[in-house]
Amino acid sequence: MDECEILAGIASPADVKALSPEQLEQLASEIRDFLVQKVSATGGHLGPNLGVVELTIALHKAFDSPTDPFVFDTSHQSYVHKILTGRHDQFDTLRQKGGLSGYTSRAESEHDWTESSHASASLSVADGLSKAAARTGKANKTVAVVGDGALTGGMCWEALNNIATDKSSNVVIVVNDNGRSYSPTIGGLAENLAELRMQPFYDRVMEQGKSTLNSMGWVGRRTFDALHAFKEGVKNTVITTEMFPELGMKYIGPVDGHNLKALEHAFEYAREYEGPLIVHVVTEKGRGYAPAEANTADLMHSTGVIDPRTGDPLSESGPSWTGQFAKTLVDAGERREDIVAITAAMAGPTGLAAFGSRFPERFYDVGIAEQHAVASAAGLALGGLHPIVAIYATFMNRAFDQVLMDVALTGLPVTFVLDRAGITGSDGASHNGVWDYSLLSIVPGIRIAAPRDGEQLVELFDEAIEVSTGPTVVRFPKGNLPKPIEAIEQLHDGVDVLRYGEADQDEQTPSILLIATGSTAHDALIAADALQESGSNVTVVDPRWVVPVAPSLLALADDHDLVVTIEDGVMHGGIGALISEALNCASIDVPVRHIAVPEKFLEHASRGQLLEELGMDAPGIIASVTEWLEEITTNDEEPEV
Amino acid sequence: MDECEILAGIASPADVKALSPEQLEQLASEIRDFLVQKVSATGGHLGPNLGVVELTIALHKAFDSPTDPFVFDTSHQSYVHKILTGRHDQFDTLRQKGGLSGYTSRAESEHDWTESSHASASLSVADGLSKAAARTGKANKTVAVVGDGALTGGMCWEALNNIATDKSSNVVIVVNDNGRSYSPTIGGLAENLAELRMQPFYDRVMEQGKSTLNSMGWVGRRTFDALHAFKEGVKNTVITTEMFPELGMKYIGPVDGHNLKALEHAFEYAREYEGPLIVHVVTEKGRGYAPAEANTADLMHSTGVIDPRTGDPLSESGPSWTGQFAKTLVDAGERREDIVAITAAMAGPTGLAAFGSRFPERFYDVGIAEQHAVASAAGLALGGLHPIVAIYATFMNRAFDQVLMDVALTGLPVTFVLDRAGITGSDGASHNGVWDYSLLSIVPGIRIAAPRDGEQLVELFDEAIEVSTGPTVVRFPKGNLPKPIEAIEQLHDGVDVLRYGEADQDEQTPSILLIATGSTAHDALIAADALQESGSNVTVVDPRWVVPVAPSLLALADDHDLVVTIEDGVMHGGIGALISEALNCASIDVPVRHIAVPEKFLEHASRGQLLEELGMDAPGIIASVTEWLEEITTNDEEPEV
Repeated sequence: MDECEILAGIASPADVKALSPEQLEQLASEIRDFLVQKVSATGGHLGPNLGVVELTIALHKAFDSPTDPFVFDTSHQSYVHKILTGRHDQFDTLRQKGGLSGYTSRAESEHDWTESSHASASLSVADGLSKAAARTGKANKTVAVVGDGALTGGMCWEALNNIATDKSSNVVIVVNDNGRSYSPTIGGLAENLAELRMQPFYDRVMEQGKSTLNSMGWVGRRTFDALHAFKEGVKNTVITTEMFPELGMKYIGPVDGHNLKALEHAFEYAREYEGPLIVHVVTEKGRGYAPAEANTADLMHSTGVIDPRTGDPLSESGPSWTGQFAKTLVDAGERREDIVAITAAMAGPTGLAAFGSRFPERFYDVGIAEQHAVASAAGLALGGLHPIVAIYATFMNRAFDQVLMDVALTGLPVTFVLDRAGITGSDGASHNGVWDYSLLSIVPGIRIAAPRDGEQLVELFDEAIEVSTGPTVVRFPKGNLPKPIEAIEQLHDGVDVLRYGEADQDEQTPSILLIATGSTAHDALIAADALQESGSNVTVVDPRWVVPVAPSLLALADDHDLVVTIEDGVMHGGIGALISEALNCASIDVPVRHIAVPEKFLEHASRGQLLEELGMDAPGIIASVTEWLEEITTNDEEPEV
Repeated sequence: MDECEILAGIASPADVKALSPEQLEQLASEIRDFLVQKVSATGGHLGPNLGVVELTIALHKAFDSPTDPFVFDTSHQSYVHKILTGRHDQFDTLRQKGGLSGYTSRAESEHDWTESSHASASLSVADGLSKAAARTGKANKTVAVVGDGALTGGMCWEALNNIATDKSSNVVIVVNDNGRSYSPTIGGLAENLAELRMQPFYDRVMEQGKSTLNSMGWVGRRTFDALHAFKEGVKNTVITTEMFPELGMKYIGPVDGHNLKALEHAFEYAREYEGPLIVHVVTEKGRGYAPAEANTADLMHSTGVIDPRTGDPLSESGPSWTGQFAKTLVDAGERREDIVAITAAMAGPTGLAAFGSRFPERFYDVGIAEQHAVASAAGLALGGLHPIVAIYATFMNRAFDQVLMDVALTGLPVTFVLDRAGITGSDGASHNGVWDYSLLSIVPGIRIAAPRDGEQLVELFDEAIEVSTGPTVVRFPKGNLPKPIEAIEQLHDGVDVLRYGEADQDEQTPSILLIATGSTAHDALIAADALQESGSNVTVVDPRWVVPVAPSLLALADDHDLVVTIEDGVMHGGIGALISEALNCASIDVPVRHIAVPEKFLEHASRGQLLEELGMDAPGIIASVTEWLEEITTNDEEPEV
């Protein structure tokens, strides 16, 4: 590309260091154009990366990656880092199967140190790296880049306590304050910030902050104030003061995150400073891309494929699981005054925004703080309300102990709605929501529902909020709603029969029970038709409530020659395993087989590609069941006992 | 009792409110004597409760429980609360089966609101209760009592951010600063505290703080400084200032936690104050009981049965699992310089103290902060070291996401040593370490070892730290080491055969494979002998490494008529379930049955009582296996397919 003459010459951070100030400015401009062009074609975290262009260039100028490890919190803002570390020619494959990951990836580059996309962990990892450097006599720095939003996470607090008390710490904490959780200060800080606000740069940031203030912003601002309590600061100039007397930590900033000279100055100071310190950088998410800057809802935090010129989505998307839940929740809220809803900084993505607008006084955004979301839900339930905690399935991992100890042990009615459950795909290993069945099914007294379609989502959610004796869960996948499937019959304990095996005219015809959970019902039915054609008698049921195991499933299983469970979650400790255990406990020794996600981390690819690869789509189910049938027939020929 | 004339008349908080100041002083004295007498006979958390006698009396005088809910963090310091709410006549049964719980318990009293003993959750629950009160138009207060140590937990940070920003919050946070994580201030606060230190009361507390300063104290102090940053304060007088400008929260204190008048004054102020606030109370753990005050190591945090006069333990205890691990770790440290160790504020109880003394520069106490403990271990491993994270099994629940995302996804060598795994008993539901198998076995690439005795602990730990490709776990129960069991043979993949079934002379003799994990081996062998006598052929194996499933177990299973798995953990998703799944996947359809902890919360009782009650001891195993044998024989008589 003509317009990328500098960028084309960047193969490693050394090439960045060699550039003149003018060339660096040019590089920043080229990277911004490059990001818009590439990410609009693949989808990805456009807004966050547009915000850290100068910040990342300046980091690579001042520090020596990978000798100085860079740890990016969540790491969805590491695209610029990838561009500067020899990967810009791979951006056409971003988030595609076999292509560049949307997060840092150790397999891709020695400049990448972590893999997880879960927030608030970077400071802890950096603390460990710093302590290891001290132990092994290394004189490097460890750079952690963390957004202001992630600072609400308890892990950051735990890490800061440890970093601040370690005088030999080499950690440089770069707070990427992108204005999303920032607003005019109130209370004791207002006075101290007066001078700061006089600066034109700050005025602009503040104005943006005001216009987008929401409850997440509130929490974030408070956190930031609490962590910072800075008393003075001048635009584009590094003022070094003891700004963190409470944490005993050096603080410099605020620094204009789009002024390369100011950033370099700050980072050079940080590089030379002995001991841990915080560099506060103020950036603008979506910076330099008009459609992002105009999208005040989320400044294009994460997009699908878009028209690079207008920012408009290019693919039509139908009604989604999230949208169906959003409507269902508002309806429930209209009927019942005791329904309240909680999100951990994801009101939009989890579908809670509509409820929040309709019932602002019954809606709580606690910030990135899953543990608090769940434990405060316990308190709300103790106070007589019925809280709905809406959360991505993968982030539920952060609050397992709170579900077990604060909700279930106390027998409280809290309904967890897990969006993006099962394989999500392109966001990579850490965004797949495949652990919830295994984790939550060990919680005593819990009830877990897996709707197969939008109609079932409504039904099961409404059943869930009727339960008053303990936690309930409704989990569904990412994406669009599938076509509804009518049940032939509902058994006494709520199990839906979706298909009956045809009358058994031949005693030799093996009978198969397919237990299809949640959205796997569709592929299960396709597979059942094919298997029936091949000479089996196939019944398909959807348990609807997958925990606890319905007694009618055990009775059905006893009537079949083979039971196959299908679930969009990991095999171990999942629903199939639970059914197998229940059969063992009931002394029903029918052969059971499982179709589920194996115990391995999944490389990023589309959901469809992964389901196919793992043999979880209809052809995969047919192939596995056919193989198992052959084995069972062979086994039967051997003498028993 | 003669000396308990006031106490004998306390049936509810109303009786406390009716007492004169002199009578309240007398009550405090009686309660202290009562606690020493009762807890010395049953064992329990003596030190913490001696520290909160006046604090709890004053709370019940100033607030109206249960209209004003009291939420005790961890709640092991709720004995005085129990005494004042009509339960003093049950203290002979403390922590005994069917008796008074060592924690708050909703079944016991309407004055108890929570059940869990896991730290740092109280502020979140209180926040929820407060928001529920606002929603339902109640005008009460919510009182959270939290120790300074628990404030290092990330949950507290998450909760404080939310409480501080809720102007309608009714939460009164009582920080019970018992000097255990307190020391002379350094840095920016030193000046502000100068006046405070002039006070005689403070001098005394400070001196104690100094003498017991350890790395936990360091972290705790820092946290406290960060949260408080108080600038002035006078002994026994409530000074109300805006002490939390950073959090925007009202602060009063420090208050002498053993001065009833000062406490009442502070709590009365708090009751009338509109909005959330913090009351900082300085107490002395073990106060008034010479043996506790003299025990500077932990001020009798938790004791067994003791001589009330001297504080000396009355029961002899033999070599423990913890002690064996402590030695093993020091040995490993001598051999390998890359071994470092991490604790979350439990250096003593987890056996890390010896390593910490021997290798202080390789030892990290991160405070009550399990998430940081694990994620910083990931950082240490990224830096080339091999971290050992020693933790109670039940507290591992708090850091599941970090094991999965920060350690396993990055493929890092971190060894987790889980003490108090399995049923612990008298500490009640939330202290049982029965969830670790289910949680950790879903982590891709993890390896989990369960030693059956002290010799195996050494062997398996040494094997664990040789693994360089991912996380390893060594888990063992609470208590004394059992007698070692020699293996007859070790199979190629590390499975120990402890007993072979006798030669099968009669084809009708059913053959049983008992897969006994960890410390269940002893009861399994006793059961095997009895079952063999009753006419079965019984083989007993100990897999040693329970995750991943050893291939030789599958081969052995295929040769038997019945496979029985035995484990000290919950059934669902446990080791038995994992073996059952592996058999399903290998198309080996032998009947499998599980002996494990059922999915319910266990009432407190001794470990032995619970194992018996759940049928997990030798008689229980014999009874279950006998029943299963009969069923299988019956099933076999039915025609197949």
